[in-house]
Amino acid sequence: MPTEQLQAAIDRLESLDTAGLFESDFLLSWDKSEAELRAVLATAQLLKELRDRGISPRVFDSGLALAIFRDKSTRTRFSFLSAGNLLGLAVQDLDETKTQIAHGETVRETANMISFLTEVIGIRDDMYLGVGHTYMQEVSAAVREGHREGVLPRIPVVVNLQCDIDHPTQSLADLLHLSRVSGGLEALAGKTIAMSWAYSPSYGKPLSVPQGVIGLMSRFGMNVRLAHPEGYGLIPEIEQRAARQAAASGGSFVKSSSMAEAFEGADFVYPKSWAPYAVMQRRTELLRQGDQKGLEALEVEALATNRRHIEWECTEELMKSTRSALYLHCLPADISGVSCERGEVQASVFERFRLDTYREAGFKPYVIAAMMFLAKLRHPARVLRQILERAAPLQL
Amino acid sequence: MPTEQLQAAIDRLESLDTAGLFESDFLLSWDKSEAELRAVLATAQLLKELRDRGISPRVFDSGLALAIFRDKSTRTRFSFLSAGNLLGLAVQDLDETKTQIAHGETVRETANMISFLTEVIGIRDDMYLGVGHTYMQEVSAAVREGHREGVLPRIPVVVNLQCDIDHPTQSLADLLHLSRVSGGLEALAGKTIAMSWAYSPSYGKPLSVPQGVIGLMSRFGMNVRLAHPEGYGLIPEIEQRAARQAAASGGSFVKSSSMAEAFEGADFVYPKSWAPYAVMQRRTELLRQGDQKGLEALEVEALATNRRHIEWECTEELMKSTRSALYLHCLPADISGVSCERGEVQASVFERFRLDTYREAGFKPYVIAAMMFLAKLRHPARVLRQILERAAPLQL
Amino acid sequence: MPTEQLQAAIDRLESLDTAGLFESDFLLSWDKSEAELRAVLATAQLLKELRDRGISPRVFDSGLALAIFRDKSTRTRFSFLSAGNLLGLAVQDLDETKTQIAHGETVRETANMISFLTEVIGIRDDMYLGVGHTYMQEVSAAVREGHREGVLPRIPVVVNLQCDIDHPTQSLADLLHLSRVSGGLEALAGKTIAMSWAYSPSYGKPLSVPQGVIGLMSRFGMNVRLAHPEGYGLIPEIEQRAARQAAASGGSFVKSSSMAEAFEGADFVYPKSWAPYAVMQRRTELLRQGDQKGLEALEVEALATNRRHIEWECTEELMKSTRSALYLHCLPADISGVSCERGEVQASVFERFRLDTYREAGFKPYVIAAMMFLAKLRHPARVLRQILERAAPLQL
Repeated sequence: MPTEQLQAAIDRLESLDTAGLFESDFLLSWDKSEAELRAVLATAQLLKELRDRGISPRVFDSGLALAIFRDKSTRTRFSFLSAGNLLGLAVQDLDETKTQIAHGETVRETANMISFLTEVIGIRDDMYLGVGHTYMQEVSAAVREGHREGVLPRIPVVVNLQCDIDHPTQSLADLLHLSRVSGGLEALAGKTIAMSWAYSPSYGKPLSVPQGVIGLMSRFGMNVRLAHPEGYGLIPEIEQRAARQAAASGGSFVKSSSMAEAFEGADFVYPKSWAPYAVMQRRTELLRQGDQKGLEALEVEALATNRRHIEWECTEELMKSTRSALYLHCLPADISGVSCERGEVQASVFERFRLDTYREAGFKPYVIAAMMFLAKLRHPARVLRQILERAAPLQL
Repeated sequence: MPTEQLQAAIDRLESLDTAGLFESDFLLSWDKSEAELRAVLATAQLLKELRDRGISPRVFDSGLALAIFRDKSTRTRFSFLSAGNLLGLAVQDLDETKTQIAHGETVRETANMISFLTEVIGIRDDMYLGVGHTYMQEVSAAVREGHREGVLPRIPVVVNLQCDIDHPTQSLADLLHLSRVSGGLEALAGKTIAMSWAYSPSYGKPLSVPQGVIGLMSRFGMNVRLAHPEGYGLIPEIEQRAARQAAASGGSFVKSSSMAEAFEGADFVYPKSWAPYAVMQRRTELLRQGDQKGLEALEVEALATNRRHIEWECTEELMKSTRSALYLHCLPADISGVSCERGEVQASVFERFRLDTYREAGFKPYVIAAMMFLAKLRHPARVLRQILERAAPLQL
Repeated sequence: MPTEQLQAAIDRLESLDTAGLFESDFLLSWDKSEAELRAVLATAQLLKELRDRGISPRVFDSGLALAIFRDKSTRTRFSFLSAGNLLGLAVQDLDETKTQIAHGETVRETANMISFLTEVIGIRDDMYLGVGHTYMQEVSAAVREGHREGVLPRIPVVVNLQCDIDHPTQSLADLLHLSRVSGGLEALAGKTIAMSWAYSPSYGKPLSVPQGVIGLMSRFGMNVRLAHPEGYGLIPEIEQRAARQAAASGGSFVKSSSMAEAFEGADFVYPKSWAPYAVMQRRTELLRQGDQKGLEALEVEALATNRRHIEWECTEELMKSTRSALYLHCLPADISGVSCERGEVQASVFERFRLDTYREAGFKPYVIAAMMFLAKLRHPARVLRQILERAAPLQL
């Protein structure tokens, strides 16, 4: 990208109304306006472009970015870490080994105790239905009270690194990937994306990836198809929201109970396993009760149910029925014959798109950095111009 | 604070004799002169003020701050982390899972091996009577030998993040809090602080908080009252020291076996649980021997003893007898009906002072940063002026 | 070192052909030319000299250095951490608790997922014969593919922090130590170094230290003696390589089955325990099979075999037969009567050289930093001049 193009991109960012992002949390993509989402994507691209040119977009001289991971994670952890580092923040994990589900007093107090020099709090809490999003709201309310009451000099913003409802850093990275391969967000209107359940020899994968995808892609005029076996539906309100959003954006939202149907003529396919909503509800209850036996019984049952849908696999055959579709995945994928006997995708399909999925993942650090940037800087375009002029080298 | 006031505060700091802090450890508050303690408080306030204004007080371009935590910690860990980050140091944990009580050769060698680029070593070791302080001295002696012998180019200073004897970063944060709400250190003379034991449904809490409080507050002309049930006395030498210091500073030191008596007319109250000295001695011995059965028996016995003093609770009733006292706590508090059935403090009392205790805690990162600053910079006032003139923005 | 000397050292560095180090991994010392090794030592000394003068050699404004430790480590971990910090990189551990020996797809994918902003990947993997070096090559191939294919904007270089074959950051720190005490690399020609097995009450110590030492020291005209009991030979190819290299450099390589013979008239002695090659092969197989019983049986057998060589101890007596030799060790040493009943070295011998071994270890952070520096900067001498001119203070 030549410098004039970079400057033009900054101008375009400035024309968007991003005031609502300043000092705001990023919890659910559908709480953000279209302009705000566009601003996140534009900023992510600008930050990536600057770094690729060897220009450091560091904006903080000190400060902490806290990572609270209530579930294992490698890629999102490193994406958050990279984003914080890029902007000059030291990333620190908060290890919450004490209580599985912390409540009330503890959250309120702890959130303040760790935030005296904190700018951003990234949270992953996706294991329990009805918990993750609520927890993020509790943390946010706690630090905002702290700021209001003179405990914290600055407002630490919360970034959702995956909850029970949404996974916005993933879906926005996915969207940026689609936008880049298609020649811009506008080019996505009228395109068809198939978000399909796929078989996996495990159970209990969160619903937030498919929910995040249909909740986001339905806002850009795309035809969104959601396919899954009976009983594997998503949170009903989110499906309804996707339908409303698709209608409003000039796209469509169609449900199907066949991967083949969903793939037919699709431009993008996203075959991925998730747990049935009802199973997740029972699992949440059992985990809450610490009922180990119940959990084991549920696993046996859920795996047996899964196995009845072993044919839900993204095969070469199915790919042929698409419009030379791009394969998407949040990784790691369950690859038949590679990471498991039978999984979400045939090995040859995955291998053909492997590097594409890496590139897709590569946007995540920049999407997170963009969320931080827009939440912490009142005049993001102005600061980006400063960064460009300053041209501090990433490396001597 | 307007800039002239800031400059005046720096001038006042310069007038204090802080030479003794340079390249010195901060292990026990009573090893420091009054001028040195005032310098720590003044520097902490200046660093906080600078950051609150968006000016970065970063003084290091690289370097490590090591954290050695031999006991669980969230708030002190994050305070140390924040302090290091504020000044430009990368904070690194040393995980000592190998040996519980390391001795001799190992400490001497390890301390050097991890210190080639280390500026500060923060240590928490508060579990064993007679151990923590000694360990800090061993680490300090080891790195000082290393420096003398050309192994380490700079002297890493040790900061006590809580030992068996003192908890100076806590007590100085407490003092700064008292000073701020009272209008300065001078205003504390003649005020009464009640450091009282309180009931907790746990046992084995360290003695270093009450010891730190009476060992520090007794130096500023305050009337210090120490109250506890029979058998819950502190290390005798420290009580004696508090009495001597109080007399010398124009205050007083009074012991009592009643919380009510201690609270009567007090300006500040600090109700907090701790373990009986004799129990800690037995516990140390049992831990040393790895006597699990003995430890369990001791716990049963100690909890039963505690339960006899369940009425030692900071109630609304008791608060009424004070001079509208400010409630203090190092957090987390055992709050009756919230974090336990019966605890140190009534829920309504705690809730009224909750945000005050958060503000109290908020001074700790700056107190630690001040200790680092004064130990690592030969001319702290001069450097503060440089920071003010440079006015590097905390964030673009 | 006066500034002119520093500038002369930079000029000498510039005269060496270091192009081959740029964007290259550092896996085995013998894959590097003599000029390249000299460049590493020269750069390490320059970086140390700069820092000792209070000049910050920071070259990165942001970026990550990843540490993958598949074996416990304190000193190498802190050396890597210090090196990254010195140059401006944030060091992050990758915790691989999932699979002991990760293969194929997983490595390829994970290596990319964690490398979007990564400059250097430091790996320790020394437990399994035939595994560590291969793993490092896999990681390197994965990120190089990622770079080639537009996934990663920059090439993360891999630094071997100890594998099954070599331990180059250790051996180069050892060599720098020898060079400094002897007055330069040239002065080492003709000197004799005894790398000898020594008794330890443990088993299974990696072979990479002695292999690294004979594989490196044999290139500088030294007389290298390798001594060990029968059955404790190193990987045969490396012994052969040492012999070839010694011949080519004007030195010699001699094997012996007696510590006394090896020490006789030696200038440097390096008595250290390692596991018999054959035992390591069996251990690797048993670990691979997860055969816990087999491993326990092997340990019993191997310890019994070790015990037959309990007299392989570095004693005062033996030291007397040397040419006032300098004692070397990578630490921690098994010190008779200190860290174990009978070990590698007599307490009085170790104590006399204790601070020397600390100084030896002190070169490791700078050797690692030099490897990073030369791999990431196309014109290292030019940048060192910039650093010297800029003279950014390490601390205000």
